Amino acid sequence: MDAQAERYSIDAFHRGEFWLKQPAGKGHRAGMDAMMLAAAVPSPFSGRLADLGAGAGAAALAVISRCPGSTAVLVERSPEMAQYARETLELPQNAHLKDRASVLEADVTLTGKARIAAGLENAGFDFAILNPPFNAPGDRRTPDDLRAEAHVMPGDLPEHWMRTAAAIVKPRGGVALIARPVSLMPVLAAMEGRFGAVEIIAIHPRSDAPAIRIVVRAVRASRAPLSLHPPLFLHETGSDRFCEHADAINNGMASLFGD
Amino acid sequence: MDAQAERYSIDAFHRGEFWLKQPAGKGHRAGMDAMMLAAAVPSPFSGRLADLGAGAGAAALAVISRCPGSTAVLVERSPEMAQYARETLELPQNAHLKDRASVLEADVTLTGKARIAAGLENAGFDFAILNPPFNAPGDRRTPDDLRAEAHVMPGDLPEHWMRTAAAIVKPRGGVALIARPVSLMPVLAAMEGRFGAVEIIAIHPRSDAPAIRIVVRAVRASRAPLSLHPPLFLHETGSDRFCEHADAINNGMASLFGD
Repeated sequence: MDAQAERYSIDAFHRGEFWLKQPAGKGHRAGMDAMMLAAAVPSPFSGRLADLGAGAGAAALAVISRCPGSTAVLVERSPEMAQYARETLELPQNAHLKDRASVLEADVTLTGKARIAAGLENAGFDFAILNPPFNAPGDRRTPDDLRAEAHVMPGDLPEHWMRTAAAIVKPRGGVALIARPVSLMPVLAAMEGRFGAVEIIAIHPRSDAPAIRIVVRAVRASRAPLSLHPPLFLHETGSDRFCEHADAINNGMASLFGD
Repeated sequence: MDAQAERYSIDAFHRGEFWLKQPAGKGHRAGMDAMMLAAAVPSPFSGRLADLGAGAGAAALAVISRCPGSTAVLVERSPEMAQYARETLELPQNAHLKDRASVLEADVTLTGKARIAAGLENAGFDFAILNPPFNAPGDRRTPDDLRAEAHVMPGDLPEHWMRTAAAIVKPRGGVALIARPVSLMPVLAAMEGRFGAVEIIAIHPRSDAPAIRIVVRAVRASRAPLSLHPPLFLHETGSDRFCEHADAINNGMASLFGD
């Protein structure tokens, strides 16, 4: 095995519908989080999607793979990850999607003219999906670790990301974000006054365990009230395999909110 | 049937463990909301409980009926409802609970010296349960009604009630509140900086329907992160009867959070 072969991996998503080139040994590797986030976009969606914090492009490709009328801009600050995203789009396995996606190397937290100059124009998108880096660390197990994590999480991150999402999404356009439950309050606060019709789905490993993720979706400039959907339980009680519905969502065959 | 007989009703709760005297034809009648809120108090709880917005006393009596080491102060602003609470405590059916409960006619939103003078002393309670009047109107059915309701709901109510709860509960004491999902954000905002270890349980009519209530519990002066428990589904799919677990909670035989 040579060193080059270990540097990255090329992984199948949606049962081979698209592939991702991503670093093998370090950083955040795309997986369930990106698929659950992408699944928040309604299946009939057509229009222009911004994937903020795109990494190698997993969530964006999942959306355009499931929603044939959509295009995506993969917004990624890290030059290394943006390069992986470009190489992902060049993979021969992704040739059928390539024309509907592009990579924009830009910092999501830019504001005003700097944001626009970087390529994130006002009201230029129909939907934004956000996978902010506060989801990156692995799940911690002890109460002390959970506490520490709650404190180190940059508190202004949801605010900065949601500010950009509100700027770039058209009125009545959508936003969706995946986060840990600990971020529920700052996420809702960052949406306040910008997005309405907030819908929340909690993701639980199984029906008797606390949520490990929340997916929050909302509509730009709506004033409709918040609603809490039934949660998603990933596994049947007593099993390590995904339950059928979670598997369908993970593989682009169902949307998370059922629309 | 005489007029007197129609003025009030005397209703059994917890399968006859305690009874409630309440107005029959008007106002808010105690039911599932009060039982679900009471069920948020852990079964081993012993200490002094404040029931803020007690009405005729349903939630407080449900707690002291389930938790033998507890006492309760029923805080109610409305003179009429406070009188119902007093008469509830005088019912012969409630003789076994009477010595552990008292009624305090006071406005929960009082502050500072006025609050203390009204009988709500600083750090005088081990737990506070809140059933604010924004839950009073019946469920509305149309999106327009939901929107209107979201707007008319007094936005500062959670803040005022939680401020009082934070003042009267001892450090490491508990608070629990039942509300509509639309109030999730103001409730969490009102807890911020006052309570931690926030735990949320959503209550859904059934497993495929949005939540109709949230129960939010937290610990005074804790810095532990928020968690989302598995929700409570009231009915089995396709049935109008309470499922076994919901029935047990409703009848004081199980706590909502399993503790």
